[in-house]
Amino acid sequence: MPEFSIGVDLGGTNLRIAAVSRDGGLLEKVTLGTKVALGRDHVINEMCDAIQRLSSKYKSTGIFLGAGIGIPGIIDMQTGMLRKSANLPGFEDYPVRREIERRLGARVVLENDANLAALGEQWLGAARGIGNVAVVTLGTGIGGGIVLEGKIWHGMNGMAGEFGHVTVEPQGYLCGCGNHGCDERYASASAIMRMAREAIASGEAPSFAQAASSDPEFGAKSIYDLAIQGDERARQIFRSFGRYLGILLAGLINTLNLDMYVIGGGVSSAWDAYAPKMFEELRARSLVYAATAPDHPLGSSSSGKEEGASSQTESRTERKTVITLALLGSDAGLYGAARVAVPAG
Amino acid sequence: MPEFSIGVDLGGTNLRIAAVSRDGGLLEKVTLGTKVALGRDHVINEMCDAIQRLSSKYKSTGIFLGAGIGIPGIIDMQTGMLRKSANLPGFEDYPVRREIERRLGARVVLENDANLAALGEQWLGAARGIGNVAVVTLGTGIGGGIVLEGKIWHGMNGMAGEFGHVTVEPQGYLCGCGNHGCDERYASASAIMRMAREAIASGEAPSFAQAASSDPEFGAKSIYDLAIQGDERARQIFRSFGRYLGILLAGLINTLNLDMYVIGGGVSSAWDAYAPKMFEELRARSLVYAATAPDHPLGSSSSGKEEGASSQTESRTERKTVITLALLGSDAGLYGAARVAVPAG
Repeated sequence: MPEFSIGVDLGGTNLRIAAVSRDGGLLEKVTLGTKVALGRDHVINEMCDAIQRLSSKYKSTGIFLGAGIGIPGIIDMQTGMLRKSANLPGFEDYPVRREIERRLGARVVLENDANLAALGEQWLGAARGIGNVAVVTLGTGIGGGIVLEGKIWHGMNGMAGEFGHVTVEPQGYLCGCGNHGCDERYASASAIMRMAREAIASGEAPSFAQAASSDPEFGAKSIYDLAIQGDERARQIFRSFGRYLGILLAGLINTLNLDMYVIGGGVSSAWDAYAPKMFEELRARSLVYAATAPDHPLGSSSSGKEEGASSQTESRTERKTVITLALLGSDAGLYGAARVAVPAG
Repeated sequence: MPEFSIGVDLGGTNLRIAAVSRDGGLLEKVTLGTKVALGRDHVINEMCDAIQRLSSKYKSTGIFLGAGIGIPGIIDMQTGMLRKSANLPGFEDYPVRREIERRLGARVVLENDANLAALGEQWLGAARGIGNVAVVTLGTGIGGGIVLEGKIWHGMNGMAGEFGHVTVEPQGYLCGCGNHGCDERYASASAIMRMAREAIASGEAPSFAQAASSDPEFGAKSIYDLAIQGDERARQIFRSFGRYLGILLAGLINTLNLDMYVIGGGVSSAWDAYAPKMFEELRARSLVYAATAPDHPLGSSSSGKEEGASSQTESRTERKTVITLALLGSDAGLYGAARVAVPAG
């Protein structure tokens, strides 16, 4: 009899639930609003009801292995409690896992959502078949997760993968965390908007000012659109973005020497605007990358475009460092949640 | 019958060999000069002879498990060949491990010396009993090694732990690796001397100029001596050193959330001169450190000196991030080499 698990993505806005077969096939996906305002118990009730509906539906065709629940926050893996969660008031100091396990009568794993996104990409996405991978998620801020030998690397307190708060500019902009120069001040959607506002304020970017006044949804995507239309000021912004993303990645590569680094999140799709500068920084700032770079880091074709750089490549270094885009979008975390519910072995 | 292994530290200057019992007791240690100028075969002969003498001597009292050999360079763990080694000419493109195994008739493991220093500290030194640790070795440059769950983390090509080339100042000093602003330009013995020379050249440090002219061994240690005597310019240098070491460590902590970070190498002993600034940076720049810092990061006493900072500490975060000095000095690599020769399990 086939086996399946259920993955849950419990965000501040949406509650998404998927039944996934053990080999990664999607059986069914459900999206509900997260009625956070109605309180913790309401959210947990709704989630448990939905998990039960889905698991009952597929129990006739397969064995239910358990549920994985992705939560934006820091989770104590031992106790299954939330240590900190900005978007889920009332969940801290509450035995979330135990309560859900009690209601479902099934094995439940709580996990940080960024870690699950990394696991999802490693299981079924860009890093399928790759054991060691870091996923950098570029959104309003920067999130991250590390998978080593196919398992999430939690670190001591479940706080590993805080890539957004790595210092990339020691005297740089103040971050919400209290530090100056965190990466997410330089390579995120909010960083793009900060640079755009600065450009508008300086009077040097009439194209931005015009877009801002005419487009009610003026945002990072608008700057990207200007960049691909050739607007020099917009292109500068993405070069700066690529530079600092490159500095972050160069540090990760020098430190961990992983097989693959996956770039995900909404802003990641601006790849063609930031990737050239990012790769330039990687070659300059990571001797590990320089020694292990694929001949064609832009992943464009096998036309041998970057042959100049291959002189730095060690001929006997057969395994290459791959930097690539995430494939699963917002489903990565949902698949990761289903995966984490599957018992090891 | 007790078991023992042999650890070898094959440096550019010294060849050191130790027989170590499986439980970490030193049986005997031998130091020879490395006659690199006489060529690779001479060095390998001398090393194999010394290993055989030691192993024969202790074979009557214990079972010889094999030899671990620490080498300054990048090693291909699959083939047991050196990919790159600046100080051992002629060793590249040569089947070093196979040749030594053939001569000894025993299991041989080649390993990077910085990785072995990390393993040694984890086995018998500052991180004894701690599974997950990074060791940052401050010397002329900066070396490093990562131990995860008691095993060296090699990364894909054996290049993990290149902490010295993490960018800490994007527009900073040029490094030998070609990058600008590598950590080892800011927090190493050579960085201290660079800052001292700058101070002398500026005319602002008559105390340095005097020491430099009167002390034939003027070096980083001289600047440290001035700092502990209260020389303000010397103290500034160590504050800068601590700042950049703090930036490096903050990045590692945010990324990996390990239990312990051990600071070793010759310059590490200037702890009292650089550590206060280093901890200040850690608290400011790593939200993971801020949430997990021990109450007394200076490790001085239990007098509650740093209570102001403990407000940042999460009460339920029981496991603390420890930053501490290495304990084994230059023997760390030798013990690590003996350890790596012990078969797993």
